[in-house]
Amino acid sequence: MDYHFSQKVKLPYVEALYNTVEALKKEGFGIITSIDMREVLKKKLGVNFRNYTILGACNPRYSYEALLEEDKMGVFLPCNVVVQEHEDGEVEVSVVNPEALTQHVDDLTLKSFATDIKSSLLHALHQI
Amino acid sequence: MDYHFSQKVKLPYVEALYNTVEALKKEGFGIITSIDMREVLKKKLGVNFRNYTILGACNPRYSYEALLEEDKMGVFLPCNVVVQEHEDGEVEVSVVNPEALTQHVDDLTLKSFATDIKSSLLHALHQI
Repeated sequence: MDYHFSQKVKLPYVEALYNTVEALKKEGFGIITSIDMREVLKKKLGVNFRNYTILGACNPRYSYEALLEEDKMGVFLPCNVVVQEHEDGEVEVSVVNPEALTQHVDDLTLKSFATDIKSSLLHALHQI
Repeated sequence: MDYHFSQKVKLPYVEALYNTVEALKKEGFGIITSIDMREVLKKKLGVNFRNYTILGACNPRYSYEALLEEDKMGVFLPCNVVVQEHEDGEVEVSVVNPEALTQHVDDLTLKSFATDIKSSLLHALHQI
């Protein structure tokens, strides 16, 4: 099973980041965390890394229902979306596959949520 | 395979949260995100939820090595740690199992990182 879905986008990094946030919003996801790994690695290790942002996308309604169903679901929240610029300048967006995350979860309601969220993330990915 | 490891702690919620952050720090993790789900759900859905925080724990060295090994690893970063207060007032801390996350990753170096990180998270969990 794929643990992520990824797509190269023909946009500069900052524009790709903006479009990713907008595409996720249209699918009902708010961005509740944003990690600039370039900045984190510079600050903590003193190394120079390329542009790499990890966005935390959260659909509040699904998150709420998931937490009511199983109180440990927070270990999988929010859904991560990576926007990165490769060494050659190409920009790529990756979304986590929620079905891979919840493979060890038995609850069928949660599995169906994972399938819905996967569809929404993929739809957003294709709109960037 | 367990997708999380959890432990009830005999501490008030805020103290458990503080001790969790401190225990993670001692194991080399910095907290780079913190989501107050009670606040998020109140603001976005208008519902009253119990105390529930999702901490994003990041070991910069392991994160860096993981990203150099496989550029999509950001979809699993940071490692989530949940501190929640149940309806009956009991406080529980849960850490994600990185071995469950990386089950669909073939790279043996990354699998060994997941095992190391699992040990560190479990060690932190037992120190709270």
